Amino acid sequence: MSIVKAVFVVADGMADVPLKELDGKTPLEAGETPSLNRIAESGICGVVDIVAPGIPPGSDVAHLALLGYDVLEVYSGRGALEAIGSEIDILPNDLALRCNFATVNEEFEVLDRRAGRIENDDAAKLAVALEESLRDDPPEVGGILFKSTIQHRAILRLSGPNLSTMVSDTDPHKIGVKVLKARPLDASSEAHNTAAILNQLNQQFYSVLKSHPVNDERMKKGLLPANTVLFRGIGQLPEIDPLTLLYGIRPAVIAAVPLVRGVCKVAGMHLIPVANATGTYETDVIAKARAAVETLEVHDFVLIHFKATDLASHDGKPRTKVAMIEKLDVLVNVLLNTVDLEDTLIIISSDHTTSTVKREHSGEPVPVAIVGPDVRVDDVDEFGERACAKGGLGRILGKDLMPIIVNLLGKAEKAGS
Amino acid sequence: MSIVKAVFVVADGMADVPLKELDGKTPLEAGETPSLNRIAESGICGVVDIVAPGIPPGSDVAHLALLGYDVLEVYSGRGALEAIGSEIDILPNDLALRCNFATVNEEFEVLDRRAGRIENDDAAKLAVALEESLRDDPPEVGGILFKSTIQHRAILRLSGPNLSTMVSDTDPHKIGVKVLKARPLDASSEAHNTAAILNQLNQQFYSVLKSHPVNDERMKKGLLPANTVLFRGIGQLPEIDPLTLLYGIRPAVIAAVPLVRGVCKVAGMHLIPVANATGTYETDVIAKARAAVETLEVHDFVLIHFKATDLASHDGKPRTKVAMIEKLDVLVNVLLNTVDLEDTLIIISSDHTTSTVKREHSGEPVPVAIVGPDVRVDDVDEFGERACAKGGLGRILGKDLMPIIVNLLGKAEKAGS
Repeated sequence: MSIVKAVFVVADGMADVPLKELDGKTPLEAGETPSLNRIAESGICGVVDIVAPGIPPGSDVAHLALLGYDVLEVYSGRGALEAIGSEIDILPNDLALRCNFATVNEEFEVLDRRAGRIENDDAAKLAVALEESLRDDPPEVGGILFKSTIQHRAILRLSGPNLSTMVSDTDPHKIGVKVLKARPLDASSEAHNTAAILNQLNQQFYSVLKSHPVNDERMKKGLLPANTVLFRGIGQLPEIDPLTLLYGIRPAVIAAVPLVRGVCKVAGMHLIPVANATGTYETDVIAKARAAVETLEVHDFVLIHFKATDLASHDGKPRTKVAMIEKLDVLVNVLLNTVDLEDTLIIISSDHTTSTVKREHSGEPVPVAIVGPDVRVDDVDEFGERACAKGGLGRILGKDLMPIIVNLLGKAEKAGS
Repeated sequence: MSIVKAVFVVADGMADVPLKELDGKTPLEAGETPSLNRIAESGICGVVDIVAPGIPPGSDVAHLALLGYDVLEVYSGRGALEAIGSEIDILPNDLALRCNFATVNEEFEVLDRRAGRIENDDAAKLAVALEESLRDDPPEVGGILFKSTIQHRAILRLSGPNLSTMVSDTDPHKIGVKVLKARPLDASSEAHNTAAILNQLNQQFYSVLKSHPVNDERMKKGLLPANTVLFRGIGQLPEIDPLTLLYGIRPAVIAAVPLVRGVCKVAGMHLIPVANATGTYETDVIAKARAAVETLEVHDFVLIHFKATDLASHDGKPRTKVAMIEKLDVLVNVLLNTVDLEDTLIIISSDHTTSTVKREHSGEPVPVAIVGPDVRVDDVDEFGERACAKGGLGRILGKDLMPIIVNLLGKAEKAGS
């Protein structure tokens, strides 16, 4: 028997509900997707409750589940996962928060949660000023780091004893209301201390930012000033074993989105850089597919993450979502034309349903199709939410998908003897 | 997006097995049910293992599961749930038992478990006599209450320290055998004490009842005397959070059966009284449907319970069960003609299979159909046990149905971010 390898394509938020604009079809059902359909037709299909029936998962939880982890047990907040994916080192006891440069008025009411989607350069300059202020006037904490990543996004990392993730966000998650005070979510001294540090930083960052030349310049140009930083998603690294230890595989990932990169890195996956894989509508799917096939020469499990389907859903654009699904079909076509299905599995799924009606993650299960050697092919011949619900895999949980793949890879460990 | 509401119709014991009398069809398959079929055709179907595959649930456990609770974790006996539904106050640490006025001979052998289905008036008079005897000669317990409810049924409530639910029934659950001694089911002093109290009450109640004028009168009329009280189903309130806290919904229920009312009340549901909703074959289904639609003006989740299907199964009457299913179809027809499926979900299911062959609850899954906005309609076009098994929901657990409904209501909370 030859060695079997796997390409796992995860299309973010691809699953959807029936849409009026598409005559009651989902975007996946409405699109022209000959390659996705070929996978369904030559393989086995099913639907997956990523966490549990009816529960809408976040992308972080969803990817942990798709990689086989029990998220109800291991999930420990988004901040650290996103930080890791942004090339910021996080150690097991560090806390990390997601930060937004934002615009507030003098009453501290949020005018824009993204400071006019501030550009990388301006954000980087402001981040340097904040770092300097942390050196000159440090809060009482073992270690602190603040770093801007993409546009308005940044990461705050806290290290040392007497810290806790049981602290609420300062980000009110909507405009027109005041920036919140961080509150301890339990009675521990650690939670009180962490909340106090965040509230102090909130003041300190505002006083540095409000009079910073970059913001003066922005206002002169009619741009919104980035005069505050909102904190959210405090988290630590999940305590998980790497995939290699759990399943004996050599895993890699092609993903542009920091959060997904972070989850995969924590799971011990090798990050494969691909030029023009951007996580946007313009991402180069042919480059991603070719990179995946190349990666299979040294790794036996490659995950390709595709973000554009989710973006279109959050933007509430059914036809754009259909177009992005058709773009994904091109990626899958390259895979089908390049790999040998006698020794390679292709798995297609999604990390969650994103309803283009609600423009939000939703709790319906996602479709999955698996093609490759030794697969019990069923009679589903179309890749869609409803077609796959009739498939041979039935309705499964997200954490069960990885063991199913590992079994098809011939690497499953026997329970008992 | 408009606010979505839901009507959840639970037909008690509606699901069944194929019956010879109905040419191998189940009652649901044999009935003329255009409205139920319309729900199946315009919606998504599936089958539900209320507790777990193969396990026949009681109505109390079944309703807790259908409301989303993990019954293996929270169930704590039937007595307290039925007491609450009978308008008897039960506090968190109280014990409550279901009681039957019954007829025994001088050897304490049970002749009739329902004392000839004694009428409410006679039972109430006897209950007053028992209450007086408890005042004059109280057992050693913090507090005690005995109250008759409907016909032969009554509730015994015990309060105070040194009590336990780990005690067996005195009801032998069949005739021709002796009334049982209550036995402690673990080694605790609480269980021993509780069993001793019940055994003492058994004697005390018999001595009050055997010579009571009401029973003398009954025997003169040729009626069976209610000369003993059988105890069963000892229980406490389950420790559960109300549905409003769990799901952010404003829930109400229309139900006549005390046990179902009790479960729903403990779940924080508002009880809607409906004249002529009796829990019998004669119940007014049109009044129930209209009351549900009115209730939707102030609540966003209404459960309608329909008991008659279960009664027909326990009575072993296939054709009556078919007639009751057709009566339920009238209820559903009123709903379909009154609500707007653009903003209202209708969910049809059952709390358990009741086999008209065995005349008992049975462990087969029950069918479910959901129609309303954003539902992934499948191609099932008939509401029945076997048709729904091919539906897009697949085979789900009872506790997963509520999260699926809550997701369709747009109120599901995201796991992760």
